[in-house]
Amino acid sequence: MPQHTDRAYEQQLSKLRASVLEMGGLVEDQIAQAVRALTEHDGALARVTIERDHTVNRLDVEIDELCLKLLALHQPAARDLRLITTGLKITTDLERIGDMATHIAERALELDAELPVEPKAESMIDLPLMANLARSMLHRALDAFVREDVDLALEVCQSDDAIDKLHSQLFRALLAFMVEDPATIGRTMRLLFVSKYLERVGDHATNIAEMVIFLVKGRSIRHLDTIPREL
Amino acid sequence: MPQHTDRAYEQQLSKLRASVLEMGGLVEDQIAQAVRALTEHDGALARVTIERDHTVNRLDVEIDELCLKLLALHQPAARDLRLITTGLKITTDLERIGDMATHIAERALELDAELPVEPKAESMIDLPLMANLARSMLHRALDAFVREDVDLALEVCQSDDAIDKLHSQLFRALLAFMVEDPATIGRTMRLLFVSKYLERVGDHATNIAEMVIFLVKGRSIRHLDTIPREL
Repeated sequence: MPQHTDRAYEQQLSKLRASVLEMGGLVEDQIAQAVRALTEHDGALARVTIERDHTVNRLDVEIDELCLKLLALHQPAARDLRLITTGLKITTDLERIGDMATHIAERALELDAELPVEPKAESMIDLPLMANLARSMLHRALDAFVREDVDLALEVCQSDDAIDKLHSQLFRALLAFMVEDPATIGRTMRLLFVSKYLERVGDHATNIAEMVIFLVKGRSIRHLDTIPREL
Repeated sequence: MPQHTDRAYEQQLSKLRASVLEMGGLVEDQIAQAVRALTEHDGALARVTIERDHTVNRLDVEIDELCLKLLALHQPAARDLRLITTGLKITTDLERIGDMATHIAERALELDAELPVEPKAESMIDLPLMANLARSMLHRALDAFVREDVDLALEVCQSDDAIDKLHSQLFRALLAFMVEDPATIGRTMRLLFVSKYLERVGDHATNIAEMVIFLVKGRSIRHLDTIPREL
């Protein structure tokens, strides 16, 4: 049962869910475009991606303001209160994912400004695969938020291992590559950073999924050493 | 004028401020100890630091629960509402600073497990200086939170450039060092990561300071391209 039945309030709660999804969709695109700018050596696309971070930031502020308005005017309780505070916390993670897209686009520009390409290092590191994994985690975490779907949120938490392992493998491979061919260190390091940024996108998606579980279940699974199979 | 005069409510608001400070003090210590474990090659201290991250995580959950309770039971408005939502958001940054301390301690353990020390790389990178800068930013950001001091918060935002510049300098120096002596790449990379973790502590402190300005002034300076001199 909703605590409030007035229509304007329900509309604002729907607007909150829609705005979080809009911001999520935007940062998902930002990650995809930044990685494409990198792999296709497209400096113009990298610059557009960096420029578009303003829109992410604008949404961040707008959603926070909407949450504050909802809290101040409607004094929500129980589940609605958790929805709104989850919204407040999720924007922080989405905004940081936007920052990761900017960082990837910056590395893309630096790599383009450098000496001839080292195709060997690039072929060792499947950034589009990592980007797809990270984006899929984010997408599912936000689906779980809107649908208040605990099972889907738990699935996201469990996917984080895969992206962490991929990053560790790449780290070791690229390290060996640098030792072998020190002239490529600068370039290879930048690719390594991009792998790290994508791993952090996975971490942020996991944070969002954990907050969704809290939203639905009313208790925090954050910081448990093992994720319970059944909640 | 407070919106509520009942004593239990005021006590809970004070408890919120005290708990945020306690969590802040703890992560500040965690950063100091992790860097000390690294520079003094003290594996036992590194392990204690990693273990203590549980306490940081417990405080994170406790503060969030206190904020939710305050919102649900007292329906605060205006400034109190902003204080509580700022509390909710600050814990995210403090928890991530705690994670940075854990990461530094992990790198310390890895460095100890590796081949003989490379004193040259270590002497090039003044990690204790960076750690002190980052901790001072965090300390001042939390002081600004408790005192609701906008000037101090603005000062913190402006300090972030110094730590970013230090990290960039170290990055370039260590990159040159790796090219010169590829056998040290593994070790040097770990030092480079620690420098990056400390730079991120500075970013989190800046986020906290920006939220304090919002708390006091009721408008967001997050994402402005330039920080206004007068608010």
